[in-house]
Amino acid sequence: MFCVIMAGGSGTRFWPASLRRMPKQFLDITGRGPMVVETCQRVGTLSRDDELILVIAREHFEETGRLFAGRGVHILAEPVGRNTAACIGLGALYAKHLGCKGPIAFLPADHFIADRSAFLRAVDQAASLAESGGIVTLGIVPTRPETGYGYIRRAGEKVTVRGGHAYRVSAFAEKPDLEKARQYVAGGEYFWNAGIFVATAETILREMENLLPVLHQGLERLKKSIRTPSFEKEIEAVYPGLESVSFDYGIMERTTCASLVVPCECGWSDVGSWDSLHELKKTEHDTGGNFSEGDSLLIDCEGSHVSSRGGKLVACLGLKDCLVVDTPDALLVADLHRSQDIRKIIEELKRRKREKLL
Amino acid sequence: MFCVIMAGGSGTRFWPASLRRMPKQFLDITGRGPMVVETCQRVGTLSRDDELILVIAREHFEETGRLFAGRGVHILAEPVGRNTAACIGLGALYAKHLGCKGPIAFLPADHFIADRSAFLRAVDQAASLAESGGIVTLGIVPTRPETGYGYIRRAGEKVTVRGGHAYRVSAFAEKPDLEKARQYVAGGEYFWNAGIFVATAETILREMENLLPVLHQGLERLKKSIRTPSFEKEIEAVYPGLESVSFDYGIMERTTCASLVVPCECGWSDVGSWDSLHELKKTEHDTGGNFSEGDSLLIDCEGSHVSSRGGKLVACLGLKDCLVVDTPDALLVADLHRSQDIRKIIEELKRRKREKLL
Repeated sequence: MFCVIMAGGSGTRFWPASLRRMPKQFLDITGRGPMVVETCQRVGTLSRDDELILVIAREHFEETGRLFAGRGVHILAEPVGRNTAACIGLGALYAKHLGCKGPIAFLPADHFIADRSAFLRAVDQAASLAESGGIVTLGIVPTRPETGYGYIRRAGEKVTVRGGHAYRVSAFAEKPDLEKARQYVAGGEYFWNAGIFVATAETILREMENLLPVLHQGLERLKKSIRTPSFEKEIEAVYPGLESVSFDYGIMERTTCASLVVPCECGWSDVGSWDSLHELKKTEHDTGGNFSEGDSLLIDCEGSHVSSRGGKLVACLGLKDCLVVDTPDALLVADLHRSQDIRKIIEELKRRKREKLL
Repeated sequence: MFCVIMAGGSGTRFWPASLRRMPKQFLDITGRGPMVVETCQRVGTLSRDDELILVIAREHFEETGRLFAGRGVHILAEPVGRNTAACIGLGALYAKHLGCKGPIAFLPADHFIADRSAFLRAVDQAASLAESGGIVTLGIVPTRPETGYGYIRRAGEKVTVRGGHAYRVSAFAEKPDLEKARQYVAGGEYFWNAGIFVATAETILREMENLLPVLHQGLERLKKSIRTPSFEKEIEAVYPGLESVSFDYGIMERTTCASLVVPCECGWSDVGSWDSLHELKKTEHDTGGNFSEGDSLLIDCEGSHVSSRGGKLVACLGLKDCLVVDTPDALLVADLHRSQDIRKIIEELKRRKREKLL
């Protein structure tokens, strides 16, 4: 089975651990190695290396080469980011060129999954459903009224599939407010949208032709140069002109083909902020609810997250719900529960033209 | 007039900016240059360089030499610290040897004084009183019920002196609790004890002979070798055996000679903690009551103190009353109001044998 690993993002939410030149998917955020490598390992029993297609940003070509040296994975470099629809289209096109006729799994490279078996079971079920021409998405069974995720609402009718079941998708819902999120979780009809899709290349490209014709034309133009010396030049000419739209918005919310959701309970997290990483690391917390890594010393601290990656001691005294991230590039000290506001720092750094720190 | 600058301390309260190898008096804590240099400059109109006697710890000999290169100041290195009585005795002995017969000012090297003229006026008054054989101390007029300082209680009778007045000392009081401190300040009979004394060498040495005979014997033994090649060897033999006692406790609280206090309003601070430095820097605070120095960026912070001395950006987000000190050696993040508990970090570092960080 082919997998397209979507690793082209340039998130800043883990600044200063993640910088433009080294975004989250290339970092060992969760303690299991670089996330993109772990994502590939996760599907190791499903796909051979030559069935893995990594879509990355061109500026990370060298780092990716380093991480996957000696392996036969396919690496596609986007000259500019054009959101997930383009990334998925490119991956599908490439897999088709490689001779793939069956379902392909499209996986974000920077998510955490605790229960690998449960995840692989769901992907397997999704693949079996996708064979008949629909687009299947994994629906993460919610464990709390999270306001930071999008949701998928299922329809009533159940579809049985290899040792489990799936549902028709009724609707995609934006990030809700807390009250709505509570209703979603209580009602049992909603799943978290993890942005994980399974479909054949044929289905993907057909839907794109219908719903995103400009994108599809771009991909058509690219087709001839795949795996030839002119590909890099072609993609550089084509990519900037593609519409930048998410696969959810551009395809899933508008498609008339059968879209299905496979429920999945696999301990998933998008690891979207320091705050959520802190939650994820709960089993490693000390008695004060603190997480610390690297050369650090915590005295009378509570609920704090301390990452010492700058090569020197980080000593903390009397902190509460505090985030401390020391790297060779910069130091961040913040209210842990405001870690989503790191963008304010990024904006200010841009304003001050501190390019090296972005 | 001779001044003995007491710079032998090894305080850890400004860790990690101050380390054993570079304690507070050698740092530019207040923004006016190294404190020991500023202390010497402060008395520049009072004493020539060859009337300045610096008492330092031997391990700081090189740094002191660097700071006072080309100046004719006298530098006395203690092989081990033996508190202020020994330091003052040594300074008095040395000044006497240099031919000093008049009053000597004994000044801690690591204090801040905003109003230099008021300070010099008080020293001048103290000197005029000390000529007749008493020990005179400066009494800082308290501006708040500070619990971190010792106090001096004056007796009722006033002594007139060159354009001002002084009082007999009635008692020395230990650091009070808050209620007591309030009473002290409200009553008007108490001053802060700044550890600044003025007396002749003869008075000092006579009182030591009476009250600290072992110390006095040690000084007597040293006397012959002063300014000879054997001095270093002698002081190494003598110093460790001296009793380690403060001048306040060993002499001032027990002396029967006339001890006097000269009131002084000179914007004095012992700069005893990051917290008190933050107070001292009030005029440099931003609208959120934050102080920051070095490469730093504060967003939505309040009452915080950020010192970026590690050569990289320190970004702070949503902090309240937080202390952040980044240096090339270590990083400290703490509740600013618990900066006196830094000793807990020092203790833990000792336990972990992190000698280089002390």
